[in-house]
Amino acid sequence: MAIGFHIVREDVHSRARAGCITTDHGVIETPIFMPVGTAGAVKTLLQQQLDQDLQAPIILGNTYHLYLRPGTDILQQAGGLHRFMHWNRALLTDSGGYQVFSLAKIRKITEEGVWFQSHIDGSRHFFSPQRVMEIQRRIGADIVMAFDECTPYPCTHAYARNSLQLTHRWLDICLACFQEQGLYGYSQTLFPIVQGSVYADLRRASAEYIAAKETAGYAIGGLSVGEPEQMMYEMTALVNEILPPTKPRYLMGVGTPWNILESIALGVDMFDCVMPTRNGRNGMLFTWQGIINIRNKKWATDFSVIDENTTGPVSTYYSKAYLRHLFVSNEITGLQIATLHNLSFYLQLVREARKHILQGDFLSWKNEIIPRLKSRL
Amino acid sequence: MAIGFHIVREDVHSRARAGCITTDHGVIETPIFMPVGTAGAVKTLLQQQLDQDLQAPIILGNTYHLYLRPGTDILQQAGGLHRFMHWNRALLTDSGGYQVFSLAKIRKITEEGVWFQSHIDGSRHFFSPQRVMEIQRRIGADIVMAFDECTPYPCTHAYARNSLQLTHRWLDICLACFQEQGLYGYSQTLFPIVQGSVYADLRRASAEYIAAKETAGYAIGGLSVGEPEQMMYEMTALVNEILPPTKPRYLMGVGTPWNILESIALGVDMFDCVMPTRNGRNGMLFTWQGIINIRNKKWATDFSVIDENTTGPVSTYYSKAYLRHLFVSNEITGLQIATLHNLSFYLQLVREARKHILQGDFLSWKNEIIPRLKSRL
Repeated sequence: MAIGFHIVREDVHSRARAGCITTDHGVIETPIFMPVGTAGAVKTLLQQQLDQDLQAPIILGNTYHLYLRPGTDILQQAGGLHRFMHWNRALLTDSGGYQVFSLAKIRKITEEGVWFQSHIDGSRHFFSPQRVMEIQRRIGADIVMAFDECTPYPCTHAYARNSLQLTHRWLDICLACFQEQGLYGYSQTLFPIVQGSVYADLRRASAEYIAAKETAGYAIGGLSVGEPEQMMYEMTALVNEILPPTKPRYLMGVGTPWNILESIALGVDMFDCVMPTRNGRNGMLFTWQGIINIRNKKWATDFSVIDENTTGPVSTYYSKAYLRHLFVSNEITGLQIATLHNLSFYLQLVREARKHILQGDFLSWKNEIIPRLKSRL
Repeated sequence: MAIGFHIVREDVHSRARAGCITTDHGVIETPIFMPVGTAGAVKTLLQQQLDQDLQAPIILGNTYHLYLRPGTDILQQAGGLHRFMHWNRALLTDSGGYQVFSLAKIRKITEEGVWFQSHIDGSRHFFSPQRVMEIQRRIGADIVMAFDECTPYPCTHAYARNSLQLTHRWLDICLACFQEQGLYGYSQTLFPIVQGSVYADLRRASAEYIAAKETAGYAIGGLSVGEPEQMMYEMTALVNEILPPTKPRYLMGVGTPWNILESIALGVDMFDCVMPTRNGRNGMLFTWQGIINIRNKKWATDFSVIDENTTGPVSTYYSKAYLRHLFVSNEITGLQIATLHNLSFYLQLVREARKHILQGDFLSWKNEIIPRLKSRL
């Protein structure tokens, strides 16, 4: 059967909730951050590190990338993505929509779907709602996403409205052809995606349309695409007032540590973002004391550990001076350490948020630590 | 005090020996392969992986690279390389000679030393025997190497003889200024290096000159630089007849799995080579069944594990199809898996060699498996 969700505690001072998602690949305590494993790997890491060192209960795969490489034939022969990559905990795949509109070269958008050219070899492909459901069925993630158009920012109200209507028609097709019983002996769950750009009326209409589908979970898309943070929070708050409170809510592609804490306060349960991994590989470290650019010369002789308050395999094991040396020397080990540190921090951040929701002091804790998290060291 | 060495068992059918090196950073069972950690990191790996997953008792650092980056000031402030990189087992540093002659742009070789330009920024530097001893003292490895000229192959007898005499004069300076008591509370041991290119008379003269120094260990340099394998074995056998049998012998920069087994049979105890790490990053895997080019299309749907006979964190955990996908997709995780697999294999190879020396069937075992190790899968 589909994923289950129950709320363990609701915060009385904010919309935050501590919950529990059950899947056929284990339990996910919420709020949760999901590391991004684009092409079947979280860049630089082994699955054992995600499982044992980071204790990530769920990671993301990207349908667009996996469809192009290794392709669904190989994934199906392997028995699905879990077995292909040897990952026994939960997986979520996006619908490919975001990448088709951001990475690929679009040839044509029609009522039926999108013709696009691969960013790898220029080959032509077609994604439709039916096709994307079939691809995600063969990939076999526990949670799969409806095919949508992620509107760019800024876009006009007219563009956003037309796009939203197309996304809703596509959603109905996704729901019609989605099968809960997966190919590999466990179930899959479909999340629809609320769109509507930064227009309150469209967001409201979309949230109402989608809430009526009574699915096991809901996603909010099309935010964190360049709009001011305040707008993102307003849209999220508005949508969360409409989405059923008893189902998990996933804010796609968000974000900074403070974005995550503010959105938890608005009632979001699930997050994913490339920031800890991608920015980590560029030398940007998130710590409980603030943000570090590890390439900065000031760290050359700072032999203190990366972050004494982050638990995990590397944060209290290696010094800032050593990690800076690895970055300056272009050592791949540096990319691995930065990735492990940032993901340790992000996962600890949501675990701490959960702890404070359970304790009842989430709001004051969040407001107290955000200025420090934002500071530049 | 300097490292200790005792021989546990000598093979009656070959010159192979199983031994034990004791250092202030732990015990090293020989024969041993030392992973290369050029700039204070074995590329792609964490120190915890080397220690816990691979159980490597000793790794190598390169003096040339560490001198240029992070530099000896930072290393000394950190309390030496062990503390800088957080590595508690043994370390060996080369003398920088090999890299000065292969990587850097040589400006001038004199009786006193070598002027060269950094391959990183073109800055000018001078390495002399005194200077290299001082640099290695500040790096603080357990075993340090004398400053030598590694002769290119081919070179004339006259060139090799002059170079050898310079190497011997430099050795005397190294020995005169070397201090066993290190800067960081533990001792260091100096290994002199036998040179002489592929000329038996020069190799013999060098081995005799160097054996007379009665150091705690000896290295053989200037081999595996392009000469035929048979010549390398002949020179190694000749030198090993002269070097004191009670001291460890280190064949520098060697080599393939069969090079290592053949050289163990000739009485070599220690090896290092970039092959498992560098070739691994290019997709070349060494297994007990033979050599795999993981990029080859034939592995695309081979869901069997990388090597069922190599123990370690990845070899029986990930499939060939998955690893091929990571390489084809340029995923850094693939480089890490290939590195971990190849080093698991190399370290298992020398552990197996030791086991067979102790059992008394090393020679027949070696001769039986070498054809399989050389085969291309």
